[in-house]
Amino acid sequence: MSNRPETPTLDRVHLPSDLKALSDAELHRVADELRQETISAVSETGGHLGAGLGVVELTVAIHSVFDTPRDRLIWDVSHQCYPHKILTGRRDRIRTLRQKDGLSGFTKRSESPYDPFGAAHSSTSISAALGFAVARDLGGAPEPSLGDAIAVIGDGAMSAGMAYEAMNNAGHLGKRLFVILNDNEMSIAPPVGAMSSYLTRLYTEGPFQELKAVAKGAVGFLPEPFQEGARRAKEMLKGMAVGGTLFEELGFSYIGPIDGHDLDQLLPVLRTVKARSTGPVLIHVITKKGKGYAPAEDAADKGHGVSTFDMVTGKQKKAVSNAPSYTKVFAQALMDEAERDSKVCAVTAAMPDGTGLNLFAERFPRRCFDVGIAEQHGVTFSAALAAGGMKPFCAMYSTFLQRGYDQVVHDVAIQRLPVRFAIDRAGLVGADGATHAGSFDIAFLANLPGFVVMAAADEAELKHMVATAVAHDDGPIAFRFPRGEGVGVEMPERGEVLEIGKGRIVREGKGVAILSFGTRLKEVQDAADALAARGITPTVADARFAKPLDRDLILKLAEDHSALITIEEGAVGGFGSHVAQLLAEEGVFDRGLAYRSMVLPDTFIDQASPAAMYAEAKMNASDIEAKVLEVMGVAQLDTKRA
Amino acid sequence: MSNRPETPTLDRVHLPSDLKALSDAELHRVADELRQETISAVSETGGHLGAGLGVVELTVAIHSVFDTPRDRLIWDVSHQCYPHKILTGRRDRIRTLRQKDGLSGFTKRSESPYDPFGAAHSSTSISAALGFAVARDLGGAPEPSLGDAIAVIGDGAMSAGMAYEAMNNAGHLGKRLFVILNDNEMSIAPPVGAMSSYLTRLYTEGPFQELKAVAKGAVGFLPEPFQEGARRAKEMLKGMAVGGTLFEELGFSYIGPIDGHDLDQLLPVLRTVKARSTGPVLIHVITKKGKGYAPAEDAADKGHGVSTFDMVTGKQKKAVSNAPSYTKVFAQALMDEAERDSKVCAVTAAMPDGTGLNLFAERFPRRCFDVGIAEQHGVTFSAALAAGGMKPFCAMYSTFLQRGYDQVVHDVAIQRLPVRFAIDRAGLVGADGATHAGSFDIAFLANLPGFVVMAAADEAELKHMVATAVAHDDGPIAFRFPRGEGVGVEMPERGEVLEIGKGRIVREGKGVAILSFGTRLKEVQDAADALAARGITPTVADARFAKPLDRDLILKLAEDHSALITIEEGAVGGFGSHVAQLLAEEGVFDRGLAYRSMVLPDTFIDQASPAAMYAEAKMNASDIEAKVLEVMGVAQLDTKRA
Repeated sequence: MSNRPETPTLDRVHLPSDLKALSDAELHRVADELRQETISAVSETGGHLGAGLGVVELTVAIHSVFDTPRDRLIWDVSHQCYPHKILTGRRDRIRTLRQKDGLSGFTKRSESPYDPFGAAHSSTSISAALGFAVARDLGGAPEPSLGDAIAVIGDGAMSAGMAYEAMNNAGHLGKRLFVILNDNEMSIAPPVGAMSSYLTRLYTEGPFQELKAVAKGAVGFLPEPFQEGARRAKEMLKGMAVGGTLFEELGFSYIGPIDGHDLDQLLPVLRTVKARSTGPVLIHVITKKGKGYAPAEDAADKGHGVSTFDMVTGKQKKAVSNAPSYTKVFAQALMDEAERDSKVCAVTAAMPDGTGLNLFAERFPRRCFDVGIAEQHGVTFSAALAAGGMKPFCAMYSTFLQRGYDQVVHDVAIQRLPVRFAIDRAGLVGADGATHAGSFDIAFLANLPGFVVMAAADEAELKHMVATAVAHDDGPIAFRFPRGEGVGVEMPERGEVLEIGKGRIVREGKGVAILSFGTRLKEVQDAADALAARGITPTVADARFAKPLDRDLILKLAEDHSALITIEEGAVGGFGSHVAQLLAEEGVFDRGLAYRSMVLPDTFIDQASPAAMYAEAKMNASDIEAKVLEVMGVAQLDTKRA
Repeated sequence: MSNRPETPTLDRVHLPSDLKALSDAELHRVADELRQETISAVSETGGHLGAGLGVVELTVAIHSVFDTPRDRLIWDVSHQCYPHKILTGRRDRIRTLRQKDGLSGFTKRSESPYDPFGAAHSSTSISAALGFAVARDLGGAPEPSLGDAIAVIGDGAMSAGMAYEAMNNAGHLGKRLFVILNDNEMSIAPPVGAMSSYLTRLYTEGPFQELKAVAKGAVGFLPEPFQEGARRAKEMLKGMAVGGTLFEELGFSYIGPIDGHDLDQLLPVLRTVKARSTGPVLIHVITKKGKGYAPAEDAADKGHGVSTFDMVTGKQKKAVSNAPSYTKVFAQALMDEAERDSKVCAVTAAMPDGTGLNLFAERFPRRCFDVGIAEQHGVTFSAALAAGGMKPFCAMYSTFLQRGYDQVVHDVAIQRLPVRFAIDRAGLVGADGATHAGSFDIAFLANLPGFVVMAAADEAELKHMVATAVAHDDGPIAFRFPRGEGVGVEMPERGEVLEIGKGRIVREGKGVAILSFGTRLKEVQDAADALAARGITPTVADARFAKPLDRDLILKLAEDHSALITIEEGAVGGFGSHVAQLLAEEGVFDRGLAYRSMVLPDTFIDQASPAAMYAEAKMNASDIEAKVLEVMGVAQLDTKRA
């Protein structure tokens, strides 16, 4: 409890409506206390710190000016939503953030009416806000009734095509709509791309003693005290290539840039636009990620994602790891390959750190491309690199690869181009919850003609698969691996090129065969160990490939055993379904086989520890053991019948 | 042959290199003859006419100035590639366009080295060109070696976020790269959105007697004869809000707009940019879709997609249809529902005609939204409409829904929002070939928790499913239906709300059960009729739902028959895989069941007639009959053994 700051003013705010009774001076104090409360909470839970600290004043300003939850406020990505959660009736649970049965680390419709549209993936907020604005005008009648729609979107998120699509549509429809561009020159990594440079040109580097730059056309919106400054700024800008023209060309009124940490700018601007605007407005707000907490401000990632930490020193309490992370193994293996082969290059969509490509970029800066939050472009760009004779590794999280799915089909698979997909965070991911789970990639890739789809059973296998992908030049190839650390196996000096479509027997047994695809192999082994004590000795195999299937291996397992169980960390439709299709087509089921396919359950699993999530998904050694016992019962019955 | 125009100059051009020997005057004649040859060819084959006619001069200019195939020329979408095919060694096969074993209607890598990157879906060309430009600079070494990269993209395609993502990345990287913006104010439908309005503002309506507007900064690029005009234009534009600023802000040099039908403008501009430019350049070219052929110019869709036609009159020879198209049945059913329920609204991504929503838009203009080529935004916009109390129908082709897959998962499924997906062109599509096949939607939707996935067996079922979707308010629901005409069943007065997750027995039989999902039901019936002659009387059922499965029906079919065959017009991983998972989990395979799942084959099927494609896919009545006989053999063997 010594951790808890004194927050006398914030204590009076239970819901945003309480802010309406406060003076501007009190709102300043609310903001200061909200910042301390946010730091305190995250020091206990870990999570996304920098993003929330950057929008403390903005959060207070929006909730005090607009009428949430009737006015729909949509936080893009929503890493920055912790102060919002504290202000909207969830302060009592804020120290359960990202924990099982606790608050989500993101906005979530089922959690609060103040979260009208959840988020976690980037750049959806303008589309959502436009949908609410249109529904309002069409007489949509949800509870509470529909007021204004406000999207808060970061500059990094503006690199995504989806944001542009939404602006293009919003500018066309001309509905009253507020887009607050939260420009901190930082998403998870520093943003890249021409749009980012453009935004930087929109403001000068100095402090915001006064409203420095207001684009033409926006003056009418501004409260009186600002109009004189705005007029001067406009004069000053005459003939210069800045001024929000780009947004104006897309049909938005542009206001800004303004200092997002200065309530004396935020409050009057928001009050004025709320009172006067009729069409879409973009309010350009400059903030600092990590603002007001030195350890975050000083960190390279501005305190993006942190472990629990000491509030005074900012020192994070990170668990000691026993094995290298899969991400790091991938990056190291790719660098080794790139050292030997000058054609190897890498593409990331704004996740250089998350994919390990920051290391690759340091060593091979010319061969590493951060395309921005732009998976669609990133995939097709990779396809053309392949067509141009390079060996591109397109490194994306499973869940974000969904953004480029059509490009995977249309530009990569149909053209049979050798793009190498390194799919990180495949399977369950822990604290980030359902929105970040990589559940569907096996299913959505393995049915594409000509694709090779692999999953690594451990970190040594991952190294082999990187080598295999470099060597495979006849069409696309993908390998998936999970979040977190490897299982601690010995690492080979150099990755070995695997034979395409060949699995391996890990232990010979009888009665039941368990065929694993990916990192559940460790749990399968543990299950087999436990079963040995009961005198049951299953055969254990690692499929390595979901496509092409190792037909010989699978048919032999089916022939030599009375039961066959597949397991994968993915939804139905993937590896197990391909195995079932093979068994059906070969007539194996005609004569009976106790076949089971262990897949992720048909639910979205909320955030929890990885262990708790695997337990919920029934993917642990004990679950595998139970499944074996179930089919053994069946198999024994069959034996008795025979 | 009377159809064939006289083309003495074009006859001398076998490959683009032959253009180099011609004078500018001769190039004019090549263009004129190329236009006639294009019209003549399409009059025999049908296909995309207007787009090609709009780029005849541009095609000649590019190929005469650049060094294709070493310089990579990428046609966006590539509806406009017929003149390009004629000029690049494929004139002798141009009258096989879109036919089985003939030329593809799109660019295609496997067809010609002059097609370095195939296309069919929109807005991929800038990403592809950038990939080639980067590969060139990194020493990628394909054959032929890499020269310049040129993307030709329409103004409609610029509404897609992917194009913006690519421009953003290209502007950042600063590589030499040519983007030719082919602005005809027309994609398939007139383009919508703020970008489109912006482009319109970039040029005046009058004729192009001189180069009217050249943006600041681009003057240096221009050939001498244009510099004076350009300077005057620049003076004229001073202070105006036009001039390509938007593209310049994204890091491109902007040149234009220029008249895309005037070789005397195109040739010198292209020669100059080729000689002098170092970074990314956008050349804004104004063209007319259907140019030079009155019946196309006069048509509302500018001759976008035509049947074979009479060259003189332009009259198309359309086949008489026996039944209404599924598209029209959907549109009519939706209008009926919208008449009764004011919450029903509709969203299309630039395909109002293709989805039938043009009819809906006429009747309910306020409730119909064409968001542009922007599936990502379209899906999330629909999700917010649902959250805002509306009943949105998001109508997309199966293949284009792939563009919005992450939004389907992240914004619709995880939030369990009742978006209604009307999935047209599900399954094989005929002349458009592999890029337009709707093969994957069952698989990529049916494993999403909380989704309802239906397929219509005939046009009456489609009407029921529209009614069912209106009524279903507890989460997302999708219904798929194919290209083409219904089977001719009697239409109900009003759609009936189906019970969710319940199939129906179509005919009772014994021995073998065939469980169909979607429109293959007709073929199944035909197969059953043929089998009756052999004394085999299979049970036939229509599953209606891939999710939730009709467990009772499926388990009963499995129990009452010795063989069960599922059939669907989709890739493995879909309906049949879900059935197999159920049967496995319920232990049905333990005791033996001759189970087969008929799915689309693991290949991309090239363009052909629908009938030929179904034959290749082994999806016809005769294939079903053969499959039944195969499993009957097994089943009879089993009976004898028993």
